[in-house]
Amino acid sequence: MSKYSEEAKRKRRASKKKGLVIVNTGNGKGKTTAALGVLFRAWGRGMKVGVIQFLKNSTARYGEIKAARKLGIDWVSTGDGWTWTSKDLDESAALARHGWQLAQERIVGGEYDVLILDEFTYPLHFGWLETEEVIGWLRENKPPMLHLIITGRYAPDALVEFADLVTEMVEVKHPYRDQGITAQPGIEF
Amino acid sequence: MSKYSEEAKRKRRASKKKGLVIVNTGNGKGKTTAALGVLFRAWGRGMKVGVIQFLKNSTARYGEIKAARKLGIDWVSTGDGWTWTSKDLDESAALARHGWQLAQERIVGGEYDVLILDEFTYPLHFGWLETEEVIGWLRENKPPMLHLIITGRYAPDALVEFADLVTEMVEVKHPYRDQGITAQPGIEF
Repeated sequence: MSKYSEEAKRKRRASKKKGLVIVNTGNGKGKTTAALGVLFRAWGRGMKVGVIQFLKNSTARYGEIKAARKLGIDWVSTGDGWTWTSKDLDESAALARHGWQLAQERIVGGEYDVLILDEFTYPLHFGWLETEEVIGWLRENKPPMLHLIITGRYAPDALVEFADLVTEMVEVKHPYRDQGITAQPGIEF
Repeated sequence: MSKYSEEAKRKRRASKKKGLVIVNTGNGKGKTTAALGVLFRAWGRGMKVGVIQFLKNSTARYGEIKAARKLGIDWVSTGDGWTWTSKDLDESAALARHGWQLAQERIVGGEYDVLILDEFTYPLHFGWLETEEVIGWLRENKPPMLHLIITGRYAPDALVEFADLVTEMVEVKHPYRDQGITAQPGIEF
């Protein structure tokens, strides 16, 4: 086959539109922040956007929750104040399962153009939700044009495999560790 | 020195507040998008935010420019429709230098809390601006509490050295190349 027809084929394929499954993972900054950037952009186009926030409590997301409220963007916080040192993991697991239920309702509801499942990799990573079940459910139930953005470290391999677009945020330099600078309001939360 | 006093010292240091120089670089998605997420977050806190966009023309940033306009966020497009295959690089270089002048005015003006220099790494990388001069100028003139976010591939080493927080966005999986899917409005622009 000639190079030309390969090119034409590529261009035809490239006109395909679909709702993407996007995963922002890695140990660096910018996973949630990049998802918020998409929210901003999509909101600018008049698209219906929403956030379901897993695990972290509201105060850790102060700036963005305030912005979402001002803009009339749906923002649901399903998590407790879970941290890496949490003792009561049963409680966190139950909250994560509850969050996934809410997410499922919103996904099948069909009213969203873009939905963010913030920090959703953790319940998968910790086994509070079965990754294969979640993916199987999404495969059956996600409306074709819905963009779904999943953030968090440790994205399971099966999720990476399932996703359309996966970016790893890699920490090159970090002000906390390297210079002892505290988290800055408006920048990090 | 005991572990305890080290910990106390670390905590004292960690209370330091300052305007960060943040660089989002790498070949992956999410460099500009994460900067927009910070914009969204900072705007939510009532901070004064602005964007100076280098190189790309306005249509490539349609969703975010529309959002910025709706929210009364300053957005200046200084670039032409520069692409990787541009012939007229003199023109692009002149526009980049003009953009840097505008950026300098806004930086010393002192009215911003967060300023994004979008795609600013390119004029540095291509030598249209002298990286050492730019850094020297910032060292002298950047208001201490101003957060400056610089995006783009090929961040020069000296800029990485100068910055407080550097993240590399690494492409793990990309729908264009892997599946022939077109850029999605609201998601990528």
